[in-house]
Amino acid sequence: MQIALLGGTGDIGQGLALRWVRDTTHDVIVGSRKAEKARTMADEYETELASRDYDVAIAGLENRDAAAAADVVVCSVPAYYLSDTITSVADALEDAVLVSPAVGMQRDESGVHYNPPGAGSVTALAAKAAPDDVPVVGGFHNLAAGKLANLDADLDWDVPFVGDDADAKATVTALADGIEGIRPLDAGDLANAAEVESLTPLLINLAANNERMHDLGVKFH
Amino acid sequence: MQIALLGGTGDIGQGLALRWVRDTTHDVIVGSRKAEKARTMADEYETELASRDYDVAIAGLENRDAAAAADVVVCSVPAYYLSDTITSVADALEDAVLVSPAVGMQRDESGVHYNPPGAGSVTALAAKAAPDDVPVVGGFHNLAAGKLANLDADLDWDVPFVGDDADAKATVTALADGIEGIRPLDAGDLANAAEVESLTPLLINLAANNERMHDLGVKFH
Repeated sequence: MQIALLGGTGDIGQGLALRWVRDTTHDVIVGSRKAEKARTMADEYETELASRDYDVAIAGLENRDAAAAADVVVCSVPAYYLSDTITSVADALEDAVLVSPAVGMQRDESGVHYNPPGAGSVTALAAKAAPDDVPVVGGFHNLAAGKLANLDADLDWDVPFVGDDADAKATVTALADGIEGIRPLDAGDLANAAEVESLTPLLINLAANNERMHDLGVKFH
Repeated sequence: MQIALLGGTGDIGQGLALRWVRDTTHDVIVGSRKAEKARTMADEYETELASRDYDVAIAGLENRDAAAAADVVVCSVPAYYLSDTITSVADALEDAVLVSPAVGMQRDESGVHYNPPGAGSVTALAAKAAPDDVPVVGGFHNLAAGKLANLDADLDWDVPFVGDDADAKATVTALADGIEGIRPLDAGDLANAAEVESLTPLLINLAANNERMHDLGVKFH
């Protein structure tokens, strides 16, 4: 499967790219607003993987070209840029599944708080910005970016997914399941996205207030 | 320490009462709107514990009398009754710490959603209803009531707490730490309560959408 990571040059894009290439046979396409930046980062990921004896090619393309080539498009940009990024690639999303991992947060003196857009959740905002016939799945919100991108770190995390299109959700959770140490869970319809997205500020607040807790993830049992 | 469980005849009140008596040397006082109902439930808890060779006395009192006798008052009533319950015992809370485990939720066809009151969180609502000099701690939101009340079930759950009074929060987390299989975590100030309370509907949605997941709790790592 062809997976495009729009905004794949930062945040969780890097970790997902490295781990999908290392742990699965899927092809990863790094997307960025500038093709040159995408190519530079794809080269860095190739070098990192080659140093671990994974000799693979990673494409680096401008976001729209990355989306056009992909079966699954992960829009791993900050929430603030989400709508614009989706709009800029909208006509390239035909037959693709769009994945939204962004969380809207704001910080005050107490900690970090969930700050959903008017649509009710960032995933709902993604669904509004996407063409009507493109299924949207919310997921990968609660991955600690630093640990995810560190291939020396073993993961043991649950990751909840929401979406209204069962086939699209199954496609994305199967991709998640391919990453070692990630267990995808079904959190139901897209209308349940706010409860999933709210987990991320809680993880940040717990890491800030407890010793020896950082890069936090979660297991449900 | 004397722990009052207002609304201790239902939901998580029962499980907290049974486990504090079984696992610690603290005294538990079951509170209810009717003293007779409190007494009946306290007798049932005594019987349940006696059947496991824990020969202990549990008091059962009307809510106000229970609060007056306690160092820590857990207001384990539904969010809808929280303000009225706190107001009804307000003058009995002197020198006590008030604990709020309630979560405001509403259900639709997709699942269960966090539904905070105008105060921003249920814990903030409790703080508004409590006298100014009574410290309020939010916690015990994410305990699955059925498993908690089943003393045959071993727990392995993390429980986040919020509050602005560090001493009060330390008192309550020490009580939580006394229950076998519960690890209290500090989620920061009371202003961080919404992110803690939002975890409960997520747990319910995950249990509803994944096979072999029920009575869900959480571990952070």
